[in-house]
Amino acid sequence: MSPNHKQLQPRLDRLSEALESGALDQARRMLNRGLAPVDVAHLLESTPPRERNVLWELVEPELQGDVLQYLGDDIQSEFLSRMDAEQLVSATEGLDVDDLADLLQRLPNTVIHEVLQAMEAQERQRIETVLSYPEDTAGGLMNTDTITIRPDITLDVVLRYLRRHEKLPDSTDTLLVVTRRDELIGTLPLNLLLVSDPSILVREVMNTDFASVQATAADTDVASLFEKFDLISAPVVSTDGALLGRITIDDVVDVIREDAEHQVMSMAGLDEDEDTFAPAWRTGRRRAVWLGINLIAATIVSFAIGIFESTIQQITALAVLMPIVSSMGGIAGSQTLTVLIRGIALGHVGGANVQWLLVREMLSGMMNGVLWAVIVALVAIVRFDDYKLGGIIALAMVINLTVAALAGTLIPVLLKRLKIDPALSGGVLLTTITDVVGFVAFLGLAAAFY
Amino acid sequence: MSPNHKQLQPRLDRLSEALESGALDQARRMLNRGLAPVDVAHLLESTPPRERNVLWELVEPELQGDVLQYLGDDIQSEFLSRMDAEQLVSATEGLDVDDLADLLQRLPNTVIHEVLQAMEAQERQRIETVLSYPEDTAGGLMNTDTITIRPDITLDVVLRYLRRHEKLPDSTDTLLVVTRRDELIGTLPLNLLLVSDPSILVREVMNTDFASVQATAADTDVASLFEKFDLISAPVVSTDGALLGRITIDDVVDVIREDAEHQVMSMAGLDEDEDTFAPAWRTGRRRAVWLGINLIAATIVSFAIGIFESTIQQITALAVLMPIVSSMGGIAGSQTLTVLIRGIALGHVGGANVQWLLVREMLSGMMNGVLWAVIVALVAIVRFDDYKLGGIIALAMVINLTVAALAGTLIPVLLKRLKIDPALSGGVLLTTITDVVGFVAFLGLAAAFY
Repeated sequence: MSPNHKQLQPRLDRLSEALESGALDQARRMLNRGLAPVDVAHLLESTPPRERNVLWELVEPELQGDVLQYLGDDIQSEFLSRMDAEQLVSATEGLDVDDLADLLQRLPNTVIHEVLQAMEAQERQRIETVLSYPEDTAGGLMNTDTITIRPDITLDVVLRYLRRHEKLPDSTDTLLVVTRRDELIGTLPLNLLLVSDPSILVREVMNTDFASVQATAADTDVASLFEKFDLISAPVVSTDGALLGRITIDDVVDVIREDAEHQVMSMAGLDEDEDTFAPAWRTGRRRAVWLGINLIAATIVSFAIGIFESTIQQITALAVLMPIVSSMGGIAGSQTLTVLIRGIALGHVGGANVQWLLVREMLSGMMNGVLWAVIVALVAIVRFDDYKLGGIIALAMVINLTVAALAGTLIPVLLKRLKIDPALSGGVLLTTITDVVGFVAFLGLAAAFY
Repeated sequence: MSPNHKQLQPRLDRLSEALESGALDQARRMLNRGLAPVDVAHLLESTPPRERNVLWELVEPELQGDVLQYLGDDIQSEFLSRMDAEQLVSATEGLDVDDLADLLQRLPNTVIHEVLQAMEAQERQRIETVLSYPEDTAGGLMNTDTITIRPDITLDVVLRYLRRHEKLPDSTDTLLVVTRRDELIGTLPLNLLLVSDPSILVREVMNTDFASVQATAADTDVASLFEKFDLISAPVVSTDGALLGRITIDDVVDVIREDAEHQVMSMAGLDEDEDTFAPAWRTGRRRAVWLGINLIAATIVSFAIGIFESTIQQITALAVLMPIVSSMGGIAGSQTLTVLIRGIALGHVGGANVQWLLVREMLSGMMNGVLWAVIVALVAIVRFDDYKLGGIIALAMVINLTVAALAGTLIPVLLKRLKIDPALSGGVLLTTITDVVGFVAFLGLAAAFY
């Protein structure tokens, strides 16, 4: 990869050696001058708490802000809580407005106030604009470092105006054309500026059919817009069309990553911001809640089995075989659930096509129900030499896989309609249903036919 | 959102109305002139097969290529397989080299050859370069539309050279500085060009410490590099440093999306390229494999229970309670597994810190084991009025949650070392272990103490 990238691992190894041998001064030098802030953040995130605290103390105060912005929420909050307002001000100097706003949002109100007071008026006003929008909206995601121009100047004037800058803000691909009242009326991509005749007016070449984002738009909608139009940056406007700032693709990539992680983590009842190296008691406490919810589900399932206790006493083979029925239902249902959750997230599923999907899933569920029912029946017959048992388990399998298809399709659609995150609660609901139906169908049929 | 975005839904509604009322000419007009290709693709992906085929026939041939590039692999392959070489050539005219190469890779070799023959020599050569690299490498991801300049010209000459272009390639944020032999020696970001004095030489301002990518680098490594340095584009070079092309952020965003989808889908044994509206027989057939693998796991679990059949006959309460022990182990193990899989994917977990995580997970597992063991024991005692049973289920819970922590930590680490995708096979392996350990611990303790 890049020259920087290649040499990272050996540098990290040398750093660990220095730390282990107690050569703290050497480690401090390596950390502050040998590594990019993003690499220091990665190193901190890969380190258990005790060593992590030693490392953090070695990072120089003026670098801490740079490193902080790349850390996960969980670790960020922990480090921030140990700094006082003065340390915070010096650490966060020079950060982008959106990154600084992100950091500030994790602090108590009194500390935010102190940090803001220590800033210059203009900077403070910018931060306050961003802070006035929730973190997961376009307003919370935006930067205020836009370059704006007026429509009635020539491109040559624009070029000379740009040359007065020492550098342009990162990811600047477009200049924003505004009226005297800061109303956004057009965009001038640098690509267009560079190929156009310098003597013509901005108004004549500017793009008037441009993509823009309302400050209150959800961050996931912003991500869709960027993906759809392959954007690098987009202007953010207030409801009355006034330019507030711009969002750049690097922040959108973070939204996409977090969104994807949220889905994977919440399927296991976890928080995507969780620190991989959180201490045992914190990890245990957080997971206890999810285990408690699942214990309620398991207890319901257990009561369903309890109804048929006397049948099990008669035919203990039922207890041996019953987990097959429930687990196959759970697996089949999870497949349907996953396809539906993805389809809903991509915007493919909704409205009229749900019915088509329901029929498709039921057909596919029955198909696999019959296929595996025959095989499980044969296993049961061979093992217990009981044809009736084979027939009963086969029928229970077909019933459970069909119900699994039904539940796997309807649960995410209904949860979505109730504005409940299907990735979080869909799995528990589904397996509770497939477990109960699997056990009741199998044991109930057995109770009826023996 | 943007003006385009806002009006999409009403236009889609009018289109469905036109289709339902059989006004095909009107629908054709809406489809080809009213919607962006990316919206047509989205519409096709949200439509069941029969209506989808009707829609596809309505898309004009010269627009089909544009639409095709936005479709998922599954649907793409299906539409492509119905087109002959001539149709393919006309449909794919004007596509970006990387998108065209992606499409071609889904075709049989004879058809690829025919399509390539119909192209101009220069275009053919470009495509062949991209096709010579696997799809999931930097080479397969790159475009060849770079703008290159020489080091010994002034910026003013560069500006005049750019003005000779009608437009610059999409997402051009950087000009690439090459020697006569096409060796990449520097980059000139447009942002730098625009703020610099036009009279100085490229050599004097160009960036020589730039990020570049080897053509053989994995696409996920390219994504990490882009995220790390907030890149918009990166040059792709051969092993001897010759410039081959460039990768742009929009393609990297696709890699990140697919990567995330892969993890979610493969956890349920599904393929991320799967068409949400695949017909029932195809869906059923694909899922049958996964269900078969899980049936093997369930049969193993069932055999483990079978060992204790006589114990269950004595105390049927065991059959009623045993799913609680196994399901709690499964849930706890999945949480550990998910945290580890994410940690490995982010590069946080590996080497020395695995041991720390193992201890943390075991501690946290035992903590929750004891907590929920007490509660489950109380439920069992109240329900069956049997103190011994309460003690046995409590002990089995602690054992199973500790083993779940152990398995959840070690399975992904070992699978990773064996180069097996932990997201795909980790879950089945884990629940088989927690099921077997849960049942055997509970029933075995009962067999020993009754």
